[in-house]
Amino acid sequence: MTTEPAMTALLAWFLVESQWRDIPANVRHEAKRSVMNFIGTAIGGCRDEAAAVALQAFAPFFGLARATVIGRNERVDALNAAFLNAVSANVLEFDDTHLGTVIHPMAPVAPALFALAELRGASGEELLHALILGVETECRIGAAVSPSHYRRGWHITSTCGVFGAAAAAGKLLKLDHQHMSWALGNAAAQSAGLIESLGSMAKSISVGNAARNGLAAAFLAEQGFTGPDQPIEGTYGFANVTSDETEFGSVIKGLGESWAILENAYKPYPCGVVLFPVIDGCHDLCEQYRLSADQIAAVTVRGHPLLRIRTDRPDVTNGRAAKVSVQHSVAVAFIYGTAGLAQYADECVGEPEVLDLRWKVTVEEDASIPVETAFVTVQTKDGRRLERHVTEARGTMARPMTDAELETKFRSLVEYAAPTLNAGQLIAAIWGIDDQQDVAEIVKMTVP
Amino acid sequence: MTTEPAMTALLAWFLVESQWRDIPANVRHEAKRSVMNFIGTAIGGCRDEAAAVALQAFAPFFGLARATVIGRNERVDALNAAFLNAVSANVLEFDDTHLGTVIHPMAPVAPALFALAELRGASGEELLHALILGVETECRIGAAVSPSHYRRGWHITSTCGVFGAAAAAGKLLKLDHQHMSWALGNAAAQSAGLIESLGSMAKSISVGNAARNGLAAAFLAEQGFTGPDQPIEGTYGFANVTSDETEFGSVIKGLGESWAILENAYKPYPCGVVLFPVIDGCHDLCEQYRLSADQIAAVTVRGHPLLRIRTDRPDVTNGRAAKVSVQHSVAVAFIYGTAGLAQYADECVGEPEVLDLRWKVTVEEDASIPVETAFVTVQTKDGRRLERHVTEARGTMARPMTDAELETKFRSLVEYAAPTLNAGQLIAAIWGIDDQQDVAEIVKMTVP
Repeated sequence: MTTEPAMTALLAWFLVESQWRDIPANVRHEAKRSVMNFIGTAIGGCRDEAAAVALQAFAPFFGLARATVIGRNERVDALNAAFLNAVSANVLEFDDTHLGTVIHPMAPVAPALFALAELRGASGEELLHALILGVETECRIGAAVSPSHYRRGWHITSTCGVFGAAAAAGKLLKLDHQHMSWALGNAAAQSAGLIESLGSMAKSISVGNAARNGLAAAFLAEQGFTGPDQPIEGTYGFANVTSDETEFGSVIKGLGESWAILENAYKPYPCGVVLFPVIDGCHDLCEQYRLSADQIAAVTVRGHPLLRIRTDRPDVTNGRAAKVSVQHSVAVAFIYGTAGLAQYADECVGEPEVLDLRWKVTVEEDASIPVETAFVTVQTKDGRRLERHVTEARGTMARPMTDAELETKFRSLVEYAAPTLNAGQLIAAIWGIDDQQDVAEIVKMTVP
Repeated sequence: MTTEPAMTALLAWFLVESQWRDIPANVRHEAKRSVMNFIGTAIGGCRDEAAAVALQAFAPFFGLARATVIGRNERVDALNAAFLNAVSANVLEFDDTHLGTVIHPMAPVAPALFALAELRGASGEELLHALILGVETECRIGAAVSPSHYRRGWHITSTCGVFGAAAAAGKLLKLDHQHMSWALGNAAAQSAGLIESLGSMAKSISVGNAARNGLAAAFLAEQGFTGPDQPIEGTYGFANVTSDETEFGSVIKGLGESWAILENAYKPYPCGVVLFPVIDGCHDLCEQYRLSADQIAAVTVRGHPLLRIRTDRPDVTNGRAAKVSVQHSVAVAFIYGTAGLAQYADECVGEPEVLDLRWKVTVEEDASIPVETAFVTVQTKDGRRLERHVTEARGTMARPMTDAELETKFRSLVEYAAPTLNAGQLIAAIWGIDDQQDVAEIVKMTVP
């Protein structure tokens, strides 16, 4: 157990003192790319069952309709908007990933900010600035508790995301040092989310709560709701309680010099990020050897232990669970030559050909293999052993999605879930967000 | 790491199948005592700063006014009522304690049920039945993760309370086995609350959320929001993630035969329960030796390690923090001869005489001393060494509060926070709750 007494105070100080003019141009542009991917995935997920059921369950308790449910016609109160938009953005497993921590940074942070912007007003620059700081907060806290935190079973996007949402909302609310520290403390008291939930709708509750409760933490702090002095670093604070090893230097070293959002990656496939090199490997083998699924006797996937821990699920029965199943992902990659939204639909999961192939897939873990790479080995029925080692998967830092690829992905998400929207107009508005005086205009454009 | 595969399913089965006629008379009566103490403490705390600030921060987001904020005139939506009433009931540190787990059972469970009863209707018997099952759920899950869970730094009332609230609300909603299991899964995804928060308002967030989120978990499950099969016992489920040792037998052994609520104790002093034998010891020494504060050179308190971990706080500056300070509690017990609401008010914490005495108090831990007992040793200025070993503290199972003492406490709480209410009428209504067809009538009587 370690402590670093003034850590929360130092972090709060940085958040309060940071100026927009201090943010480098490449960081600002990455924030716009993150917003593009966020709004696209929130539109894409807004009719998913988890989002729809949550909306129905909470409808009797909605407050004054002041904020947009992205991609839908309902207007709700800001806290519920933050919850629902976080669920939508994350539910397709198609959002973004900070590769160092495996946090999906936008789902908690962006919905809190857009809901707050609709309630209190904010310019595009103010929103981007708060968003960059929110990402910085969640990823640095995540780094401080990694890898033990995730290994214990914490859903790090949810558990650390609530800090990011609180910090971002606190920045937009212009909280001072003491109140920002309380916002982080009020976030710590609400940090939750279990890996066990992955594959069921319950995962979406902790993601939605990260946004909602982070925003609530900032609202409470604004009114003078006090938190402890050391919510993160204290003896019984977030880090020591949820992790067996901590590295507090990760939170404060180089604040304002390095930027976590520059390590944000956008998913090319709507599934767990650890599956990307595996799917790329299947594609490559298909192309190189003109393989078809009926030629395959067995597939072995070798990767970082996280690959096995998160995705060794041969017996999934619905699309949600299939998104974290290496067996399903390998099967569809070989059968359909792609792994898109259609391949993770419930109907596809029950296809006899898919069911047949996925039982031929086994996973081996090797702690020496970096999490962003993987080996895929196929034994063919005619006795060949074909192997592909993917070191630069699509959508990783080594091979990031281009702006044009992000636009294509955005259009596919709009087409999938809200085809009546004008995708081109939205794309232009998002690239121009830094000139927008009232950023609420952009989310309002997502209403069909 | 251990697992017990069908545990959540067995627990859900018990919750669904349990019948009111199976509940023994002494269990029913204890439930009424728990409700008496809950409504009293909720009235007592309803004007506390944490409750008032939370109400102000969340007011812009209140939904349709369908539920009562106990002791106040505002009516709010059911989820916010659950939150606010849980905060009120717990904030004075004057509520109840399940001694085996140190869970305060009512704060999460009762507010969820009364809010739900106002929304959907419930008889007194239905409410008592659900309440008994909610307590059973939170205390059994708490026992399964104790003592490691609390030792790691989890605020067990909050982290386990959310399961109790979900189970109780699920019972009142008449969920079937599958939906009850999902309610527990939806609760697991929201379990949160850190010991580090004790002494600041942030503690009240996790207590309020335990009630609110437990109720939300049941509403979500009712609409078909799915949870994992093994939210508690799974490899990455609640128990293994939040505790280093688990004893799953505690959850299912003797379900329907032993009843956790029979181990519920009601606080005679508005402070941490581990302080009760210490305060009793100070009283006894004062009486036996006619001690006055100015005769005291030093005080040593010896007790279970939890006493030191939770309450070794010599430098507290407000009433909230003083409630978990052994130094403050010992000082006021010797100076005022009592430790009531007035002795934990902010003004009292700054009294020069109190400040002076509390620096003379030291704590020693001894793992062989049961948590419900303590030794208090005084060194007098004239060289005497006076010791008292308290084995049967007031408000423990060995010396429980009588029904008459509970009534007196109830009246003092009403007098403290809502003196215009008719305490006698409320007391009669609570003792008669099992004959009440519409239990909402009782909370409505708490509105001034």
